[in-house]
Amino acid sequence: MNSRMIRFILFQVMRIEGVLMLLPCLVSVIYGDGEGVFYAAVAAFLIIVGFIGCRFRPKNHSVSVRDGYVATGLSWIVMSLFGCLPFFLSGEISNFTDALFETVSGFTTTGASIMPAVEQMSHAALFWRSFTHWIGGMGVLVFLLALIPMSGGSNINLMKAESPGPSVGKLVPKMRYSALILYIIYIFLTLLETILLLFGGLDLFESFCLSFGTAGTGGFAVRNDSFMSYSLYIRWVAGIFMVLFGVNFNVYYFMLMRQFKKAFCFEEVRVFFTIVAISTLVVFAKILPLYESGAAALTDAFFQVTSIVSTTGFGSADFDMWPSTAKFVLCFLMFMGACAGSTGGGVKVSRFMILWRSVVKEVQSYIHPKIVKKVTLDKKPVDPDVVKSTHVFLATYVGIFLISMFIVSFDNHDMTTTFTAVLATFNNIGPGLSLVGPTCNYGFLSVFSKWTLIFDMLAGRLELFPILVLFAPSLYKK
Amino acid sequence: MNSRMIRFILFQVMRIEGVLMLLPCLVSVIYGDGEGVFYAAVAAFLIIVGFIGCRFRPKNHSVSVRDGYVATGLSWIVMSLFGCLPFFLSGEISNFTDALFETVSGFTTTGASIMPAVEQMSHAALFWRSFTHWIGGMGVLVFLLALIPMSGGSNINLMKAESPGPSVGKLVPKMRYSALILYIIYIFLTLLETILLLFGGLDLFESFCLSFGTAGTGGFAVRNDSFMSYSLYIRWVAGIFMVLFGVNFNVYYFMLMRQFKKAFCFEEVRVFFTIVAISTLVVFAKILPLYESGAAALTDAFFQVTSIVSTTGFGSADFDMWPSTAKFVLCFLMFMGACAGSTGGGVKVSRFMILWRSVVKEVQSYIHPKIVKKVTLDKKPVDPDVVKSTHVFLATYVGIFLISMFIVSFDNHDMTTTFTAVLATFNNIGPGLSLVGPTCNYGFLSVFSKWTLIFDMLAGRLELFPILVLFAPSLYKK
Repeated sequence: MNSRMIRFILFQVMRIEGVLMLLPCLVSVIYGDGEGVFYAAVAAFLIIVGFIGCRFRPKNHSVSVRDGYVATGLSWIVMSLFGCLPFFLSGEISNFTDALFETVSGFTTTGASIMPAVEQMSHAALFWRSFTHWIGGMGVLVFLLALIPMSGGSNINLMKAESPGPSVGKLVPKMRYSALILYIIYIFLTLLETILLLFGGLDLFESFCLSFGTAGTGGFAVRNDSFMSYSLYIRWVAGIFMVLFGVNFNVYYFMLMRQFKKAFCFEEVRVFFTIVAISTLVVFAKILPLYESGAAALTDAFFQVTSIVSTTGFGSADFDMWPSTAKFVLCFLMFMGACAGSTGGGVKVSRFMILWRSVVKEVQSYIHPKIVKKVTLDKKPVDPDVVKSTHVFLATYVGIFLISMFIVSFDNHDMTTTFTAVLATFNNIGPGLSLVGPTCNYGFLSVFSKWTLIFDMLAGRLELFPILVLFAPSLYKK
Repeated sequence: MNSRMIRFILFQVMRIEGVLMLLPCLVSVIYGDGEGVFYAAVAAFLIIVGFIGCRFRPKNHSVSVRDGYVATGLSWIVMSLFGCLPFFLSGEISNFTDALFETVSGFTTTGASIMPAVEQMSHAALFWRSFTHWIGGMGVLVFLLALIPMSGGSNINLMKAESPGPSVGKLVPKMRYSALILYIIYIFLTLLETILLLFGGLDLFESFCLSFGTAGTGGFAVRNDSFMSYSLYIRWVAGIFMVLFGVNFNVYYFMLMRQFKKAFCFEEVRVFFTIVAISTLVVFAKILPLYESGAAALTDAFFQVTSIVSTTGFGSADFDMWPSTAKFVLCFLMFMGACAGSTGGGVKVSRFMILWRSVVKEVQSYIHPKIVKKVTLDKKPVDPDVVKSTHVFLATYVGIFLISMFIVSFDNHDMTTTFTAVLATFNNIGPGLSLVGPTCNYGFLSVFSKWTLIFDMLAGRLELFPILVLFAPSLYKK
């Protein structure tokens, strides 16, 4: 294990986090809420320690698969531990577990909050909350790769460990440019949404916060009722952008490169759009009787479907009150999630497709044992190792899910609460149903449950293994 | 496809079912309930048609994997369709869907009933309900293999398609003797339980019915309150036998052969016993405050754990009222189920072990990429094809589960009802939670939901693929 390199990466991450934390200081100065000093202090500490640590550059820059996982897992833990300090030091969140929960929820783009009401929070805190979504959405290591030239071709292992999806490829031969292109697209789409929200009558602060929440598919809002008091226009803008951020970013790259044929041939994206459309229709049909106008029902159906499938988790309606089928569709979408290579979470559409196709293949193989068919995606055969690891992913996912539910069940809440609390955090959604529904929060859970869900959020965002390897005893054996 | 052979097997199954249906006639004669005529009529029809059909013996006796699946899937459908006729014709269950639901629930050893009260049913009907559990538990094709000498070594494909578990082997080189040994053990254990229940003060009829329900791990009871009014002795006898019937029958074979070392080296069985012990302790600790005496709490904890893990589904307490953790443990056990090669349902302990070990292997492979480890069971490496098909099984299982929940959700009941209705039928348990809890029944569901659950029960009992292949369009293409 290249521990020097891992240490170096951790110091880099600290330095970057320190610099990014200056932004809420700026917000604090603008709005004069006086909370900026806490952000400034933590930022200064991070920058100084990071700067000193980064001076010890390792000679060997190589990052193996294992190093990539360990570095990514640890980076996210370090980032979360320091990221929660301003909340805790300022006393805006008085309990350390709660502050950490809120921060992990932010970075992992979950958006599950322990705050019963957010409107009394300072501008700096609200901004930092939403900004953590934005940082976590595309990933801090991808950011690092985009910023800092690192020699050695093995940096792909960092990107692979942090980026979602069953297989991650580079857009262009140079890792750094791949990362840069992703961030440029990300920034452009975020700014575009901000401008469109400004047109809808929101102020600059609110527009930015909501755009950050959408872009990272996070879900922290700046109003107590999330999206319930916004106009239909705002809901549609956010809804459309939630879909856009749930799409594999490679599509945008190919569109930028004017390779439209390539851009439109992603099967996963087509399936994703189809599922969004069908789900919206089913939910719309089911909730129509609850609404006075068809337009409002359609808006909420579309908004909730896109919010959940992209794993954002904004709420424009209390969907806990919706009919069973609508709720089930939303739960299914929570489970499925968005496209690989997007900022969304969940199991991912492409994993579902690989699983589905390997099931069909299995049934076929019983009927025609002599015909050996391969699982395909985008008309190309999928590497059998990817198929295998997708199946192992599912098994691991189910295993973590069951263990988490067992622990949370000690809080003795109803089954739906226990089930959806795990579902909504593990898949980085935010709101679940029943006691953790869209009008509720996670504050009432026991400390034990909160730590379990903190683990789930990190494991979910990093797709299990970068966090799991940290718990493997054999990692610490010589 | 060897359709002549499949047809021949179907006629054999009809003939066997006809003969077995004479037993409830006998019961009817003894108790003089006058319902026997309906059983006699259907039995006569089945015997005559089966007898005529069996005269056309196919020349080619070979049964391919596909033939095995198709023959098994169709046999169970045919068996259920004719098996429900006495209920329907006698008017004891006036609705055809309900009669079929009850019969499929019987044969698949689910024990989910549509009857609000069973005590007013005739002795013949109660006997037939419990007897279907016994037939379905070990399997009708295994019975056929034990009875009828069939040439050709490919009969293993019939046994494989009907017997539960990730891989099925023969006990002895001759298929017929393997099947015979299994049935002898099965009959012996059933009789032993009947005798022990007689000692507990039950009459012969009740003892037999309960033994059939336990042996097949079915769960139909003869009292409205299932096991709630029985003595602690009866509960312990049934509890212990539910564990015994959840054990891989190969263990008993080796014990019979005095090969005790082999008998005790089954890892799956050891894990099964460990899980039963731990689950009992957890449930006991959680429900103790609800009980006046520790003995009663321990009895119910043990009884409910064994009843659920063996997928029997008898109820000695209304566990829907238990604390969240106890309910979660039961739900987890529903999902896991019993050992491969037992009469129990669910995903099976050995599949869980294979999945768990392949997850550990995956994590290890990230840490030490150069060390190639194999998944082992009983200290032997598991065939990679078995590992692969276990993963595909899980994916298929999850897929069917989600689709079933979607359909049942149209009934607009609470999430727990929808979830556990599918869970408890798909895994062949019987009672779930909330509206399908141990004091409730499935009668209130819509016809649409009932047919979905009928499918789930069959798919669950036959471990998915023998039923799924029947729905594959490519089966019907030349």
